[in-house]
Amino acid sequence: MKLQNSLNFSGGPGALPESVLLLAQQAMLEVPELGLSVLGISHRSDWFASVITETENNIRALLGLPRDYHVLLLQGGATQQFSMVPMLLMRAQAQAAQYLHTGYWSGKALPEARLQGPIDVVWSGASRDFKSLPTSADLNFAADAPYLHYVSNETVEGLQFHRVLGRDDVPRVCDMSSDFLSRPCEAERFSLIYAHAQKNLGPAGVTVVLLRDALLQDAPSNLPCFLDYRQQAQAHSNLNTPPVFSIYVTLLVTRWLLHEIGGLAKMAHINQAKADLLYQAIDSSAGFYQGRAAAQDRSLMNVVFNLATPELERAFLRQSLAAGFSGLAGHRAIGGIRASIYNALTLPAAQALAEFMDDFQRQNPA
Amino acid sequence: MKLQNSLNFSGGPGALPESVLLLAQQAMLEVPELGLSVLGISHRSDWFASVITETENNIRALLGLPRDYHVLLLQGGATQQFSMVPMLLMRAQAQAAQYLHTGYWSGKALPEARLQGPIDVVWSGASRDFKSLPTSADLNFAADAPYLHYVSNETVEGLQFHRVLGRDDVPRVCDMSSDFLSRPCEAERFSLIYAHAQKNLGPAGVTVVLLRDALLQDAPSNLPCFLDYRQQAQAHSNLNTPPVFSIYVTLLVTRWLLHEIGGLAKMAHINQAKADLLYQAIDSSAGFYQGRAAAQDRSLMNVVFNLATPELERAFLRQSLAAGFSGLAGHRAIGGIRASIYNALTLPAAQALAEFMDDFQRQNPA
Repeated sequence: MKLQNSLNFSGGPGALPESVLLLAQQAMLEVPELGLSVLGISHRSDWFASVITETENNIRALLGLPRDYHVLLLQGGATQQFSMVPMLLMRAQAQAAQYLHTGYWSGKALPEARLQGPIDVVWSGASRDFKSLPTSADLNFAADAPYLHYVSNETVEGLQFHRVLGRDDVPRVCDMSSDFLSRPCEAERFSLIYAHAQKNLGPAGVTVVLLRDALLQDAPSNLPCFLDYRQQAQAHSNLNTPPVFSIYVTLLVTRWLLHEIGGLAKMAHINQAKADLLYQAIDSSAGFYQGRAAAQDRSLMNVVFNLATPELERAFLRQSLAAGFSGLAGHRAIGGIRASIYNALTLPAAQALAEFMDDFQRQNPA
Repeated sequence: MKLQNSLNFSGGPGALPESVLLLAQQAMLEVPELGLSVLGISHRSDWFASVITETENNIRALLGLPRDYHVLLLQGGATQQFSMVPMLLMRAQAQAAQYLHTGYWSGKALPEARLQGPIDVVWSGASRDFKSLPTSADLNFAADAPYLHYVSNETVEGLQFHRVLGRDDVPRVCDMSSDFLSRPCEAERFSLIYAHAQKNLGPAGVTVVLLRDALLQDAPSNLPCFLDYRQQAQAHSNLNTPPVFSIYVTLLVTRWLLHEIGGLAKMAHINQAKADLLYQAIDSSAGFYQGRAAAQDRSLMNVVFNLATPELERAFLRQSLAAGFSGLAGHRAIGGIRASIYNALTLPAAQALAEFMDDFQRQNPA
């Protein structure tokens, strides 16, 4: 059995582009412009200040982000954002913040938000086993909510919104951890976007936050410094020692998106083509492969499906592993098969998996 | 100018051992036992569970840690611990927690603690410009304090405690960020020890916490999950996606300490020899180099000194850089020169710096 980085369909931390891995490898012993290991460089050095600035500028360029947004690089993952968002935006408001419960990850945000104040779950897919997302007719957004929170892509269930939700007069907050920088996202329609790195951006340990400056105007002043977006913004993401290596690799990934891929429209085109190959393999299998998500809500990042029996699923995982594929086991919460096709997973790799799926079906006739 | 990793005296993030860098470099493309990049492996994999377990066991073995301690690997650095400690230990107590203010870093902990409840600063070196530490006669510890907090080594001023402070009947909490695993530390005399990795343990992004289980018995239940030591302990440091790479490198460093160095007594012996070389260079310079810290409180990790004029200090930094040394500028808060000689900095490197200091003095007679 020989696993291949290029066939790594891990749900997260996900695979990174080969060219980025080679540069990260070089930096272990020597960042080219410095001659020192990236692991032993002061976060107060001019070099690291330039790393933060270029990472921020690259993200701005990729998204066409207006100047009145801060771009922050924080620790703590999306989980920390589950708390930081209500700490900033609920304040003393009696009105409940509105949350959508569309799957595993949006569900994780709910108890953390409730610790900070009242929330109103606008819609929940729990009774539908999270197999589809709400239509616009299902949703009724309050005009007086302090904010609306939702998750753009549910990695566990393989569901993704293909439109922007909510009202223009209520701040939109979106957890884009699993599809940030995988496609254009109309960032300027959101007041706050957050995304941990370990799907499309870089190694685990750093989280990108885009935040409209106006949100900080009445920010509470009694928060621990690392939970205070205002202090983080003032310190230019260097309040205390940041995860230098994770940020450096994130810089390398943004360079790759800009200069090798050519921007988010091109990235989205590639991601659509990859997803099309796998959903086509499912749809043409006459039910041998059963897609989990409703067709209109299918994720372009996580293709989640089942086979007829647990035995057959185990055989699929065993044989795919032997063929060099990895990371195809479904999330421990629901099992089944999940092919995560984040930015770094190539079109030929998706093609290879689609062909493996066809072959496996032929060798295991129903 | 050619900088050398082996002559990197950075105050932090600090240099890592060459053999660890080589293994980290290999893991960028392929963790030997897996065949996949360390950056694309699920944190829920069996492999990563074994990484956490071995890291924890190695730390236990190095310290001879009793079984009733948790070993946690968290995010957020010492800064996050500045808040998590009082969130756990102050509770509704009216009695003030006792804090020592011995330099830059212990000073950073004070405002964060005050946000959570009352503190009593037992002793402050501010009026002495933080050039020495308190003697036992200077200190009066309260029997009814919820805990005592101090910093074992002040990296900015180059001060280090060479004894354990406080009372046995009051929980001791110590920020050992800059000397953890540099020497035996009588860990069993502390209720809670924390240390970010980026001095002696690994890359920035992970923080080690040792915590006596009894502290969790009445832990508050209304904390955000990531700030709750109990939930972190129950999840075995895998509550949400941990910084996989930083933890993996920390594992490699603990292996290096155990198997290449041979344990903390041997590490302490080497560290003492390194510090002796540099303090000897200062003490034999007839005042050309002026050590900042009082002799009895000198740090074995950070050798901080001045030259007669700012011009001479700039010349020293310029010429040392040209000779391949890096990271010797003092902390931005106080300037001067700082040679940080964490675990990975070798005895020959300290010898080389001592010789450079002698040469520089000869070439620049007073």
